[in-house]
Amino acid sequence: MRHRLKDVAERAGVSVKTVSNVVNGYAHVRPDTRARVEEAIAVLNYRPNLSARNLRKGRTGVIALAVPELDIPYFAELARHVVTAAADLGWTVLIDQTGGGREQERVVASGITDHLIDGLIFSPLALTADDLINLDGTPMVLLGERVAHGPADHVVIDNVAAAREITNHLVGLGRRRIAAIGSQRTPEGASARLRLDGYRSALEEAGLGYDEALVAPAPVWHRADGAAAMRNLLSSGVRPDAVFCFNDTLALGALRALHEAGLRVPEDVAVAGFDGIEDGRFSVPTLTTIAPDKERIARLAVELLANRIDGDRTAEPRELAAPYRLESRESTQGR
Amino acid sequence: MRHRLKDVAERAGVSVKTVSNVVNGYAHVRPDTRARVEEAIAVLNYRPNLSARNLRKGRTGVIALAVPELDIPYFAELARHVVTAAADLGWTVLIDQTGGGREQERVVASGITDHLIDGLIFSPLALTADDLINLDGTPMVLLGERVAHGPADHVVIDNVAAAREITNHLVGLGRRRIAAIGSQRTPEGASARLRLDGYRSALEEAGLGYDEALVAPAPVWHRADGAAAMRNLLSSGVRPDAVFCFNDTLALGALRALHEAGLRVPEDVAVAGFDGIEDGRFSVPTLTTIAPDKERIARLAVELLANRIDGDRTAEPRELAAPYRLESRESTQGR
Repeated sequence: MRHRLKDVAERAGVSVKTVSNVVNGYAHVRPDTRARVEEAIAVLNYRPNLSARNLRKGRTGVIALAVPELDIPYFAELARHVVTAAADLGWTVLIDQTGGGREQERVVASGITDHLIDGLIFSPLALTADDLINLDGTPMVLLGERVAHGPADHVVIDNVAAAREITNHLVGLGRRRIAAIGSQRTPEGASARLRLDGYRSALEEAGLGYDEALVAPAPVWHRADGAAAMRNLLSSGVRPDAVFCFNDTLALGALRALHEAGLRVPEDVAVAGFDGIEDGRFSVPTLTTIAPDKERIARLAVELLANRIDGDRTAEPRELAAPYRLESRESTQGR
Repeated sequence: MRHRLKDVAERAGVSVKTVSNVVNGYAHVRPDTRARVEEAIAVLNYRPNLSARNLRKGRTGVIALAVPELDIPYFAELARHVVTAAADLGWTVLIDQTGGGREQERVVASGITDHLIDGLIFSPLALTADDLINLDGTPMVLLGERVAHGPADHVVIDNVAAAREITNHLVGLGRRRIAAIGSQRTPEGASARLRLDGYRSALEEAGLGYDEALVAPAPVWHRADGAAAMRNLLSSGVRPDAVFCFNDTLALGALRALHEAGLRVPEDVAVAGFDGIEDGRFSVPTLTTIAPDKERIARLAVELLANRIDGDRTAEPRELAAPYRLESRESTQGR
């Protein structure tokens, strides 16, 4: 015999609604109540009938989050927040790692969505607004800067202002030869371009001028790329006294390269990153960074998607900005 | 008009098979051929018809990978390898982050799988063999140690032997008061128990004895937990000269706590981790670790799952072991 929700509720001595809250992973259930429900679920071997529940609504109960790379910690941390925010609305999130390639992203944005999911939260690297404008009606929310003012709802942070703020932080500490790591010439490099713009405008406002010799490209933003770019800057003779890395993994690689070169951080070279990943709170030295409010980004994205799924699918796309914060730590301030 | 695979092939001047290889993300296509195919796909606005292709086979073309936490880098790196290995067989992978809770894992292992996916690769923390034995027939492969000798195919590494090997490495460097961080008393702590067993047996073989005061619990294995456990060990007066952390994030936290306490690594305290994550190749100091062959784990899991989906679903479950390697770095060897 297959038990139902009300059998679990009866055995646990709680309401059906409470059992439903436990099954859906909602946070606001008291621990002892949760334990009683879980006990009853185990004894009865109850399994929630997601299919039936969602078929009634014409839904799968599943949304997808598509990100370029999960081993960039920013995306892994963002994924955790999206899973949490979606659970509050009763959704399961499946995560698709696109690799950032144009074809994989097109598959995500079209093929998969046709029959598997109710909606998609999508952080594209390679797709353009033109790629997305032809898609049929799966509700979608975009994250990041790639498809600005595109055909879908969009959650952004102000990359130019954030990059200007962290560059100003370095200027304010008296640094005069401030390098940048992470520039990209490809059409995919939208975040890179915006962060470079912010860096450049801060330098020019400070009267320091913009020197291309201080800007190191990094087609990929992993630790190894940051270390290689830092070594190149050091061996090129430009002698930076600070470096703004366009993400935290680049910055952690740069810290390593500076350590190997026998240079002190921040005394000889101050280092700043971007993303506010957990790693930077424990690195030696700890890492100064721009921390986007990932929890807020996730919550806004899930809310926009819910409005799209349940509401007017033809309404004008909305663009919402999430806040960020400069986290000043040892890599620029010292201990 | 909706274009088809052969229209793309014709325009690109290649075979239909080659277009299919590009669309499926296979690696062995020459870059210039790939570029021609992508150009043709873009011009024709071709979208692969995954639904039709898979409906013919009675499949969704999608498998799921369920892991406890993506912001433990081990799981993020493993996910990348699973996505790659599955793409070689034409599968898209969706990733489910369970949080390691029993109820979420039960939902993954039953509800979702009913209609969305062809199979599941599952790294459970909380589920037991009894939870899994009642599941209906979605093909499943288990990773890790939790449900050893359970009802499904299983890819493991020998945690006891690996923990013994890294403890022996510390003994061989002359360390005598070797602490451990990461023990867990919960039934969920299967990896913790196996790694503790290996640590203990290495100490006893070396005639050093087992001292519970040197073993620090960590119910969760994040950096903050490793730092807190290390601080506790230091303030408890047990004066370790080495510490084996049961994963790399714990070890990175311990490195930070030792740095803050003004102790030198490895001169005062040698530190070793487990997981072989990328972070440990760039930390200051670099981290000695046990590196499971994640690429091999992913490939074995995908192959076992493919055999289950296409082959005999009632055959006896198989257990395959993947290799691991001791990576000796600065945190135990110095520079």
